[in-house]
Amino acid sequence: MPSTARTSVSVPLPKPGSQSALRERNQQRVIAALMSGGPRTQAELARATGLSTATVSNIVKSMSTTGIVSTAPTTSSGRRALSVILNDNGQVAAGIDIGRRHLRVVLASPNYRVLQEASVPLPLGHSAQDGLGAASDLLDTLLENGGISRAALLGAGIGIPGPIDRRSGTVVQGAILPEWVGINIHETFGERLGIPVFIDNDANLGALAQVTWGPHSAVDNLMFIKVGSGIGSGLVLNGALFYGHVGITGELGHTTINEHGLICRCGNRGCLETVASTSTMIELLGRGGSDSVDTRRIIDRALTGDTATLRVIDDAGVAIGRALAHMANLVNPETIVVGGPLTDLGEILLGPIRRGLARHAVPIIGETTTVCMSSLGDRAEALGGAAVVLAQSGLSPALIGSS
Amino acid sequence: MPSTARTSVSVPLPKPGSQSALRERNQQRVIAALMSGGPRTQAELARATGLSTATVSNIVKSMSTTGIVSTAPTTSSGRRALSVILNDNGQVAAGIDIGRRHLRVVLASPNYRVLQEASVPLPLGHSAQDGLGAASDLLDTLLENGGISRAALLGAGIGIPGPIDRRSGTVVQGAILPEWVGINIHETFGERLGIPVFIDNDANLGALAQVTWGPHSAVDNLMFIKVGSGIGSGLVLNGALFYGHVGITGELGHTTINEHGLICRCGNRGCLETVASTSTMIELLGRGGSDSVDTRRIIDRALTGDTATLRVIDDAGVAIGRALAHMANLVNPETIVVGGPLTDLGEILLGPIRRGLARHAVPIIGETTTVCMSSLGDRAEALGGAAVVLAQSGLSPALIGSS
Repeated sequence: MPSTARTSVSVPLPKPGSQSALRERNQQRVIAALMSGGPRTQAELARATGLSTATVSNIVKSMSTTGIVSTAPTTSSGRRALSVILNDNGQVAAGIDIGRRHLRVVLASPNYRVLQEASVPLPLGHSAQDGLGAASDLLDTLLENGGISRAALLGAGIGIPGPIDRRSGTVVQGAILPEWVGINIHETFGERLGIPVFIDNDANLGALAQVTWGPHSAVDNLMFIKVGSGIGSGLVLNGALFYGHVGITGELGHTTINEHGLICRCGNRGCLETVASTSTMIELLGRGGSDSVDTRRIIDRALTGDTATLRVIDDAGVAIGRALAHMANLVNPETIVVGGPLTDLGEILLGPIRRGLARHAVPIIGETTTVCMSSLGDRAEALGGAAVVLAQSGLSPALIGSS
Repeated sequence: MPSTARTSVSVPLPKPGSQSALRERNQQRVIAALMSGGPRTQAELARATGLSTATVSNIVKSMSTTGIVSTAPTTSSGRRALSVILNDNGQVAAGIDIGRRHLRVVLASPNYRVLQEASVPLPLGHSAQDGLGAASDLLDTLLENGGISRAALLGAGIGIPGPIDRRSGTVVQGAILPEWVGINIHETFGERLGIPVFIDNDANLGALAQVTWGPHSAVDNLMFIKVGSGIGSGLVLNGALFYGHVGITGELGHTTINEHGLICRCGNRGCLETVASTSTMIELLGRGGSDSVDTRRIIDRALTGDTATLRVIDDAGVAIGRALAHMANLVNPETIVVGGPLTDLGEILLGPIRRGLARHAVPIIGETTTVCMSSLGDRAEALGGAAVVLAQSGLSPALIGSS
């Protein structure tokens, strides 16, 4: 049941079986689909909820009367359709993306409108306390700027660039933020803010953002790869974020590319991160040159055709494509979306990635997998954080009463 | 909803929404869970169906009265429980495993009892027509031996050692059976037998067998790897076989291990299959030796401590472990089960696989992934074929009336 799975990021749907709650439960399914996937046509809602189109139509009519949703004519596959959108009820979801050097916070309404958004730099090597403190401060500022009360906050979805053990809710060894290892963010941040907090790997949130905020809502099997100081990926499988056994999935950055290569921060050798992360590119291009290199400068130089920069990007792209080939051979995604600070490179990076993929994937996999840049840029992770909150809140019956 | 997902191998559950069908639908869910997962306790049924334990208890009582199921006292986690088992209703599922050189057919009842089973050799390079003809003949023989009428056949689940494009239902290029490429087995075999036919990759069926017939019914995320003339794998993710975008998943055998290695039948170089398949082992050990080597002899020699054989197995195992590490880094399985003709090697093969996995996986993944041999031996694929039929039939409301 791919469609309902998308709505159940981790909270199960109410238990079926009793007849009395059936109507409310069906309405709840529709709301959950709208909150986890954004505005949709009635036909899409039927598919997403598993309900019949007649049932969806009745529920939408009733919710439209009571002001929970609005409808608007639209076209879908060339045919007339009715787009259903949740009405703004004053509630707000926060999405927070904490990186090695940056912090971004967005505030979004249940109908997927960005109300407030800001990003600030963070000092390299910041502690978890400092990072969460900065996030809390920026969140307060955005609430104030938007004239939004703290009571309107449904929760905060926080992305961290590191693997998270879902059994304990802590960041584990191997994170790009070593200062955060062992921290339980639910406790640390949830208590401080007094709202529900959802923590996830940033690449997972990026993947979720592609199928909610991004243009890939119809894609059931999608891989999002974030190429930055680290390289990670998030998987949407059968329409839902995939977490595996303990929650650590998509560790693409630690695919062995060069068995006797450089030592990686994970303790292994020749991992993809050691040959294709932005840190490696910066180091390679910094040698011999007199001026310092950063991600922005790599993009600028590549766009002006600098040979050395293009070569470094090409080698990195082919290696990324090779690691992606192994992943695509395994889970056969429809679409691979590339995100992170290098998205402005466009085809300059996509070209070698596609070459590496075609060279190393089983032919039919290489031919049927689409690779593209994220259109959400560096906002994907924070938007995904807000999407997690909306998806979870859509499953909470309290929301119906509050609208 | 991992639990209900297991029952929906590809046919969706009936649409919810109408109150009238609710009770039948809940009963159907319980039957589907029993057919797709075998005998279970009431608590396990509640988890598998998403129904409340009270609802499950009522349904089981009612079905027990009408003779659809039997119950027997058992213990679960040290507590008293009631095991629920579907009664034999005379219906039969066929599982068929077609390899490069062998054919196996099993007949199973809806309560997961093997009624008949046989295997015969097939000539290398047999055509699809010949292979399916032999399968049809062996199926007839088994039906006759068991005194089972053809009308009792629910369907046949057929495993093929090659990738299958689920959009067209055909075997695609890269199969270990090149003579089968382009064949539509549904049509070829379904018309001949006049029963529903389900075709799947053999490693997918092996994976399904582990969580139905095998000891891993509680494992939600499992990888089954078959090491034979080819190397393939099947994935159970969130409790259900995973098919991805076009149906070609788990192509572990084509992970690049040695970038400038031997040319693989897939057209690539240095794939895992070129360094760790039984064909490669046989070729390596055949050089210089005067007597011919086959899989059985490899096992015998290894068990008697032959140095060259142990070295070849060790190198193959470490390479398999390395490819598995990349897969485990991606989908974080709880358990990896190794199947195929080498299972009798036990720790001799598992040892190097575990070493390769630990060396190349992200530490926490290496530490939390269990690797074991399949206890189903070379029967896994055929048993999985029968399980597919039972899972699909459990979703067909017709079955309730027929019992």
